[in-house]
Amino acid sequence: MQRYKIIIEYDGSNYVGWQKQDNGLSIQESLQIAIKKQTQENVEVFGAGRTDAGVHALGQVAHFDLDRNLTIKEIQDGLNQYLRPQPIAIIEAKKVEKDFHARFSAKKRIYSYTIVNRRSPLTIDKNKAWVVHKKLDTELMNSASKFFIGNHDFTSFRSSSCQANSPFKTIDKVRVLREFNNIFIKVEAKSFLQSQVRIMVGTLVNVGEGKLKPKDIELIIKSRKRSKAGPTAPSEGLFLTTVIY
Amino acid sequence: MQRYKIIIEYDGSNYVGWQKQDNGLSIQESLQIAIKKQTQENVEVFGAGRTDAGVHALGQVAHFDLDRNLTIKEIQDGLNQYLRPQPIAIIEAKKVEKDFHARFSAKKRIYSYTIVNRRSPLTIDKNKAWVVHKKLDTELMNSASKFFIGNHDFTSFRSSSCQANSPFKTIDKVRVLREFNNIFIKVEAKSFLQSQVRIMVGTLVNVGEGKLKPKDIELIIKSRKRSKAGPTAPSEGLFLTTVIY
Repeated sequence: MQRYKIIIEYDGSNYVGWQKQDNGLSIQESLQIAIKKQTQENVEVFGAGRTDAGVHALGQVAHFDLDRNLTIKEIQDGLNQYLRPQPIAIIEAKKVEKDFHARFSAKKRIYSYTIVNRRSPLTIDKNKAWVVHKKLDTELMNSASKFFIGNHDFTSFRSSSCQANSPFKTIDKVRVLREFNNIFIKVEAKSFLQSQVRIMVGTLVNVGEGKLKPKDIELIIKSRKRSKAGPTAPSEGLFLTTVIY
Repeated sequence: MQRYKIIIEYDGSNYVGWQKQDNGLSIQESLQIAIKKQTQENVEVFGAGRTDAGVHALGQVAHFDLDRNLTIKEIQDGLNQYLRPQPIAIIEAKKVEKDFHARFSAKKRIYSYTIVNRRSPLTIDKNKAWVVHKKLDTELMNSASKFFIGNHDFTSFRSSSCQANSPFKTIDKVRVLREFNNIFIKVEAKSFLQSQVRIMVGTLVNVGEGKLKPKDIELIIKSRKRSKAGPTAPSEGLFLTTVIY
């Protein structure tokens, strides 16, 4: 038996998310089907991050075990062939030891959220960003983002359907960058609660619009109430960019 | 009568190009239909660059005349409303004098071409880049690109259907930039021959693959033979980014 680690890029627009579900096609199921076509083996593919419906990945990581011992070139090219024409691609494949686990061995996950801050609707970036019409003050958003850093009870920043046992998470870095009309919010942590990044982004947008002050983030965290935080930013602006082991 | 200048962004994937044609929907016709819906006026929209089928724009410029005098906010928001759900957006509108002409007043046009240089197919950038599998040497491509600069007879770099009277054009700048697997080729000139940028890109890719040497560009220009230059790069990687007046 050989364990393989793969790095996957995908456009999540037309998928129900990473996780296999009954209500539509997921990235996980698409990969399992492609592996079955290539190897005739029924495998479970374990992912580093359970991205929601509509969320994209530049560097999702997953692992699976095969009885057959294929070269990494066979894995990469073969799966890319069988995934066609879906917008899912294996950008790297590697043989790993049996103690590697895509989800549990991950030391850090980096997400990036794209906002296009302008009056007009999206064209080229359709389904790849959140268009916010009101002018956002990114300096205020950057100041606000610093209050997320550290270990906190993030009850105010988790989806009501979040199943994690503990609401405590440690945010290592948050940065808000502006390039003309594009705003990128980059967040790094070992792991996140469900919808945490999107609720953080929605709340930072409230700060950028002037509805909240940067220091309010501290009070919202302390309140431990989802209703105090901002809206959940739409899934289409979110990218899982990197997983570090 | 009032003349309006508009800056337009579009995803050209599903259009026959800028220019109105019988064989499908063009950007120009889409704009004319939207203007008619908003104002009940039949106008001709003049564009700065006749982008080919599949080519995108971040900053195409056009002008048109209206009998009605609308505010620029009414023009921008109204047209964006009537263009929905097409991937075409007015990102700026301005009233201009009657001597302004989107095509003839343009002093410079800037195009950017995106290559993704990797083994795997595209997902998120599908229809927005050219994927080249063989590793490209961008230093060689950059050296080669310098031979394009200046006033030359670009007969080797024009489409056989190009209708320009003269094959002479002046290239002001060419730059080849690499960011990880992404290669951006930026070209600036007052104007271009048909398919000129795409044939320049195709030829630079031949250099990057080692099929041609940088100095060969000089010989290809001198040969005045289309067959000496490289392939026409696919339209989906090309963006008209800026028009300067």
